Amino acid sequence: MHPVLRLSEHAQRSADQAIGFLMQQAVENADCISLAAGLVDEQSLPVEAAREAVAELLSDVAAGRKILQYGITPGPEPLRRVFRSYLADLEQHPDGLKDLPLSQLMLTTGSQQLLSLVSQALFNPGDICLVAAPTYFVFIGVLQAAGARIIPVHADDNGMCPEALEKTLQQLETEGQLHRVRLVYVVSYFENPSGISVSVERRPKLLEITQRYSRSNRILLLEDAAYRELIYDGEPAPSIWSFDKTRETVILAQTFSKSFSPGIRVGFGVLPQQLVKAVSDLKGNEDFGSAHLNQHIVARVLKNGVYARHVETVRNSYRQKRDAMLAAAEREFADVPGVSWVRASGGMYVWMKLPDHVETGFSSELFRRATQVDKVMYVPGELAYPMDWPQRPRCEMRLSFGVQSVEGIEEGIRRLARAVKAVMGIG
Amino acid sequence: MHPVLRLSEHAQRSADQAIGFLMQQAVENADCISLAAGLVDEQSLPVEAAREAVAELLSDVAAGRKILQYGITPGPEPLRRVFRSYLADLEQHPDGLKDLPLSQLMLTTGSQQLLSLVSQALFNPGDICLVAAPTYFVFIGVLQAAGARIIPVHADDNGMCPEALEKTLQQLETEGQLHRVRLVYVVSYFENPSGISVSVERRPKLLEITQRYSRSNRILLLEDAAYRELIYDGEPAPSIWSFDKTRETVILAQTFSKSFSPGIRVGFGVLPQQLVKAVSDLKGNEDFGSAHLNQHIVARVLKNGVYARHVETVRNSYRQKRDAMLAAAEREFADVPGVSWVRASGGMYVWMKLPDHVETGFSSELFRRATQVDKVMYVPGELAYPMDWPQRPRCEMRLSFGVQSVEGIEEGIRRLARAVKAVMGIG
Repeated sequence: MHPVLRLSEHAQRSADQAIGFLMQQAVENADCISLAAGLVDEQSLPVEAAREAVAELLSDVAAGRKILQYGITPGPEPLRRVFRSYLADLEQHPDGLKDLPLSQLMLTTGSQQLLSLVSQALFNPGDICLVAAPTYFVFIGVLQAAGARIIPVHADDNGMCPEALEKTLQQLETEGQLHRVRLVYVVSYFENPSGISVSVERRPKLLEITQRYSRSNRILLLEDAAYRELIYDGEPAPSIWSFDKTRETVILAQTFSKSFSPGIRVGFGVLPQQLVKAVSDLKGNEDFGSAHLNQHIVARVLKNGVYARHVETVRNSYRQKRDAMLAAAEREFADVPGVSWVRASGGMYVWMKLPDHVETGFSSELFRRATQVDKVMYVPGELAYPMDWPQRPRCEMRLSFGVQSVEGIEEGIRRLARAVKAVMGIG
Repeated sequence: MHPVLRLSEHAQRSADQAIGFLMQQAVENADCISLAAGLVDEQSLPVEAAREAVAELLSDVAAGRKILQYGITPGPEPLRRVFRSYLADLEQHPDGLKDLPLSQLMLTTGSQQLLSLVSQALFNPGDICLVAAPTYFVFIGVLQAAGARIIPVHADDNGMCPEALEKTLQQLETEGQLHRVRLVYVVSYFENPSGISVSVERRPKLLEITQRYSRSNRILLLEDAAYRELIYDGEPAPSIWSFDKTRETVILAQTFSKSFSPGIRVGFGVLPQQLVKAVSDLKGNEDFGSAHLNQHIVARVLKNGVYARHVETVRNSYRQKRDAMLAAAEREFADVPGVSWVRASGGMYVWMKLPDHVETGFSSELFRRATQVDKVMYVPGELAYPMDWPQRPRCEMRLSFGVQSVEGIEEGIRRLARAVKAVMGIG
């Protein structure tokens, strides 16, 4: 018998998060059609592009050796220059964002590491983060681990509501808690889980409110643009970051995990100048630099145009799958009253609401029936709200069209409708 | 004028660390021969091996897609099986360590990430870590960021002294502080910076003492084996971990950054069963898995024998450079009284002691003279002790033979001797 192992408070707060439950369920329900997994479409993964990029990068021995050496904590400057040009293209910035100092760009292990580092840099236990309701559930876990107090802000079909954000901040000011607010977190494009984007009109408003309430201390806005390039209809919106002319408020998180390859695991962030050192110090302790080879792979495909062509292919593939899921939902749920879903214009998810009384959680009758009888799995919507938030809706589902084929999506939605009807006593 | 940006206590504790000063000095003294940089020998980097591994891994499109997909937080099980076999070979374990559950292996972004995760998992501010004096200075920074109290333990030519470890623990027990001790940190092979290994006789003793003082709570022993395979003389020693029959005390950190490529950035840890979940939860928040492609690259070269051959080449190259540095030191410092150094049997560093009154720190006359006049740079030894430790020696230097050619090493030591003699008023 060994004496007890004491864990830090940070570790204790990191335990028992939604993602853990979800992955456990995925393992236990491996025989289901998964509309749950947030993986990318395997058919879309750029095997040839990656192989060729590495072959080229390592074709010259001297150049190759530099690539296999340590980089530096934020990633090498020449590569950050390439990433800045890429961002300038995304932002349709006329002069290539040359006025953005490279020191404000940091290459990370996916954008997830940036989210984690920013949280570590900002939150003492009890400090406040405002998030849309619903929001990205993995980030909820990160915030919980940091001991942050998470306050959901109402969102509708145009994303987080500026009025609701302002009201929440006013309320916190009234309560004398405004000085504890560190961050507003917004997934601005085709949010995971809701599929909703913040409308163009609201983007500068969310920024302006955040800045206006930066009184005793600065409140930052973390814009998570993970799904930005997975756009299937309409024109791309400018980022919230692009409205931040002094670049002192918005942290922009970008990743190539969705648009290129999660197995290569490269993301980057644009940071307010005053946050650079803190995030870099933290990253220095964590890994003193993400894998250098991988940063070169992404820079290579960005430069030679392979990336742009690949994204176009990916978009076409996901667009078909999104269409298939929406059409299947129309078909299969036509006769189910009180069901609605978001017609996502991008991303990987369809967010579906059932009537209030139909609970979707892991311990619900629907989840049991879906996974045990009809053999289909989804992500319960309640995971996308802080667990201790009493008002959280219990009747929603995140349905991913990322992993399944068109046929798999159609069959998955058919099975899901069967389970919902059974639980609702229809048909 | 923007309102002040408030950083977390964690971020504040992460600031102003030795590594930051050192990198700044490296930039400012770019015209020097660097005996400071801890990079690996660029000539040794396995460009062809890496290129071929990727070409093979991505030659089949279906298999390649799985490699470019997300892995899982601790790394895929089949890969962990390969890493376990590799460890079994290192340990010369007769049955391939098949009794070690794969769940206890975790693949990380270099071993640095494991060190960081373990610290996050264990330390609340004020908790205690015992380290050898001197020790790996980047880990000192990690501990400071965690708010840990760092207590140096005397080490000699056979590594950390068991008697000194026991005395320190006794003292802490007397002070009622034993319950705050979480970890003993030991770089067991060719330590950075001292080049010293813990002798075979001391390995089980350090373990036994750690276990014996695990009274109110378990004390873990973190064995950092980063330089394990860079052995140039004698027989490899069994790890401290190998003596831990119940595998409940030692955390073993291994990396391929030194022996293969830091740009591929793959390391792994073996964790006591009860620590697995905490470290995995923390890593899930940080990145939900290091780059999957890179894990496959390393597994591939481990399996096909390329790695073993490469390590042999690396050893031969570093052995020559080590010999060159030791011979140059004999030559150049022969007429300098009171100078001694460690004849490292492995690793990348020679640890040199000057007479007590000859300070080596960044603000010392020697550092100024070496970098400004003689154009050679070293790492001041005092960085390898906690900054707030009053007894820390100020007259030591870490000299790396990793980066320079044999000629560069010889010229670097010649310049260094010139600077030392000038400061000591010799010749």
